Amino acid sequence: MLIGAIEAGGTKFVCAVGDENGRIIEKTSFPTTSPEDTLVMAKKFFSSFKIEALGVGTFGPVNLDRKSTTYGTILNTPKIKWRYYPLLERLKTDYEIPVYLGTDVNAACLGEYHFGAGEQVDSCLYMTVGTGIGAGFVIDGEVFQGKNHPEMGHILIKPHPNDSFIGSCPSHGSCLEGLASGTAMEKRYGVKAHLLENIDHVWEIEAYYLAQALMNYYVILSPEKMIVGGGVMKQAKLYTMVQKQFMELLNGYLEVEHVDELIVAPKLEDEQGVKGAIALAIKDLV
Amino acid sequence: MLIGAIEAGGTKFVCAVGDENGRIIEKTSFPTTSPEDTLVMAKKFFSSFKIEALGVGTFGPVNLDRKSTTYGTILNTPKIKWRYYPLLERLKTDYEIPVYLGTDVNAACLGEYHFGAGEQVDSCLYMTVGTGIGAGFVIDGEVFQGKNHPEMGHILIKPHPNDSFIGSCPSHGSCLEGLASGTAMEKRYGVKAHLLENIDHVWEIEAYYLAQALMNYYVILSPEKMIVGGGVMKQAKLYTMVQKQFMELLNGYLEVEHVDELIVAPKLEDEQGVKGAIALAIKDLV
Ligand SMILES: Nc1ncnc2c1ncn2[C@@H]1O[C@H](COP(=O)(O)OP(=O)(O)O)[C@@H](O)[C@H]1O
Ligand SMILES: Nc1ncnc2c1ncn2[C@@H]1O[C@H](COP(=O)(O)OP(=O)(O)O)[C@@H](O)[C@H]1O
Ligand SMILES: [Zn+2]
Ligand SMILES: [Zn+2]
Repeated sequence: MLIGAIEAGGTKFVCAVGDENGRIIEKTSFPTTSPEDTLVMAKKFFSSFKIEALGVGTFGPVNLDRKSTTYGTILNTPKIKWRYYPLLERLKTDYEIPVYLGTDVNAACLGEYHFGAGEQVDSCLYMTVGTGIGAGFVIDGEVFQGKNHPEMGHILIKPHPNDSFIGSCPSHGSCLEGLASGTAMEKRYGVKAHLLENIDHVWEIEAYYLAQALMNYYVILSPEKMIVGGGVMKQAKLYTMVQKQFMELLNGYLEVEHVDELIVAPKLEDEQGVKGAIALAIKDLV
Repeated sequence: MLIGAIEAGGTKFVCAVGDENGRIIEKTSFPTTSPEDTLVMAKKFFSSFKIEALGVGTFGPVNLDRKSTTYGTILNTPKIKWRYYPLLERLKTDYEIPVYLGTDVNAACLGEYHFGAGEQVDSCLYMTVGTGIGAGFVIDGEVFQGKNHPEMGHILIKPHPNDSFIGSCPSHGSCLEGLASGTAMEKRYGVKAHLLENIDHVWEIEAYYLAQALMNYYVILSPEKMIVGGGVMKQAKLYTMVQKQFMELLNGYLEVEHVDELIVAPKLEDEQGVKGAIALAIKDLV
């Protein structure tokens, strides 16, 4: 069975065709321009395959409130042409097959749950630390959401005593994303994050924020695994630093036997987005 | 149909018999002493009724991990005699009817969802601000939990610029509970919280912490309603103060049409605990 997958990113679209085991058969990508042009490109790619369902992980915010009459519409994004664009409706018209829409980070979470680092557990959280910070949560094979999808990157946390940066989030200043995203690091230090590789205190501070975020997610959601990915995590030393600070912050309040099994790296590499989109679609099919 | 309900609190046990509509028919309470003595008292009360199921909202922490062999056992509580007590097992032996166990705060949340302030919505959060701070979340009629029940009172948040208190949580110092519970207020100011009634900045700081907590819960769980109760909320002015600070912190990032409908007081008064326990039991019955 062939399944279509779209990773609808803010800067590029990745389209792929795969099967229900998450194997990718064909893949392409192109820049995200106007909705019209971008979606025509996608349609052209898929037209050579007989796909039976389509999974889409999109940038946000997007209306995923099932009680809303505008379910599946992009919300107030800085990308003007996409603002209030009825993405799901358009895809349903274009393809006439079942279409499953989720956020990019929720799709990534579901992808890791089915095909990656979350394969052995009943619940997992996935956090990406990149240009922004986002996180999703999957439990018993379902993407978790309340009224709408989470915006977990915007939680408020404690500033580090040696950090006087006011934060880079346009809405909240020093929320998690405003303190710890790649963008925040660039604004705080004036250079790109990877150029700070050898400055220890930079990563101490970064690990402190990420550990706090994971602690908050942990006491609220109680996931079996927390998978942390995104460009900033290419600093692989961050994993042990975050694990250590997480245990210090938690301070024995909850039992964690093996923190290196609780806080882990993703297993899906470049294909996480499209595999996640496939995972969105197979949920109802298998 | 008669349903038994136990609100198993750290200082007192409340036992009640009610029906599937949450109507209480008979109620009693007595101090929480040893497990043996307390549970014999409970059994005696229920022996005059033909109850068909029993719901129990207990103090915690308690093992509610369904994959665990000690599911239903009290965990590492300061109440020595109850530590590692197999509560659920004992209740099942005592009553030989279906027994439903949840935490006190999750039960309260489910009670408000079925019979109180959450009656009209699909998902609601309930936070209690008392001796400690706890919160639970119900979605589509189910108590939410990951691997184990949440411990949402222990999230980390930003200190208020005018607050130098180090916090009262034995594990985390200045977590939410360590900064904003009744216990924290007493330790910070040296007097009981209600005696601070007329000191404005006390409540500004308190509202700032509670608003942060609600913001974090809101962006992670996206509840339709957030119900805030507990002894400290008897300062009714806190509701508008928390609503206002919540909107300032959120700063338009997510649309909230009516904050006074989003953040509300509980509707169940003294009987919240036992009505919540009934709600735990009816879930599978109706
Ligand atoms: N080796 C690295 N070390 C630290 N930060 C990095 C590294 N590579 C990329 N980044 C940062 O990660 C961010 C991009 O994250 P990425 O996950 O690739 O993109 P996006 O979040 O836009 O999908 C940028 O802020 C960049 O500075
Ligand atoms: N009128 C009031 N104003 C402010 N705080 C109060 C008031 N009444 C009780 N409290 C505080 O609430 C806490 C008790 O909360 P409560 O919910 O009644 O108990 P518990 O959390 O133990 O179940 C105490 O710390 C007490 O100081
Ligand atoms: Zn923010
Ligand atoms: Zn704490």
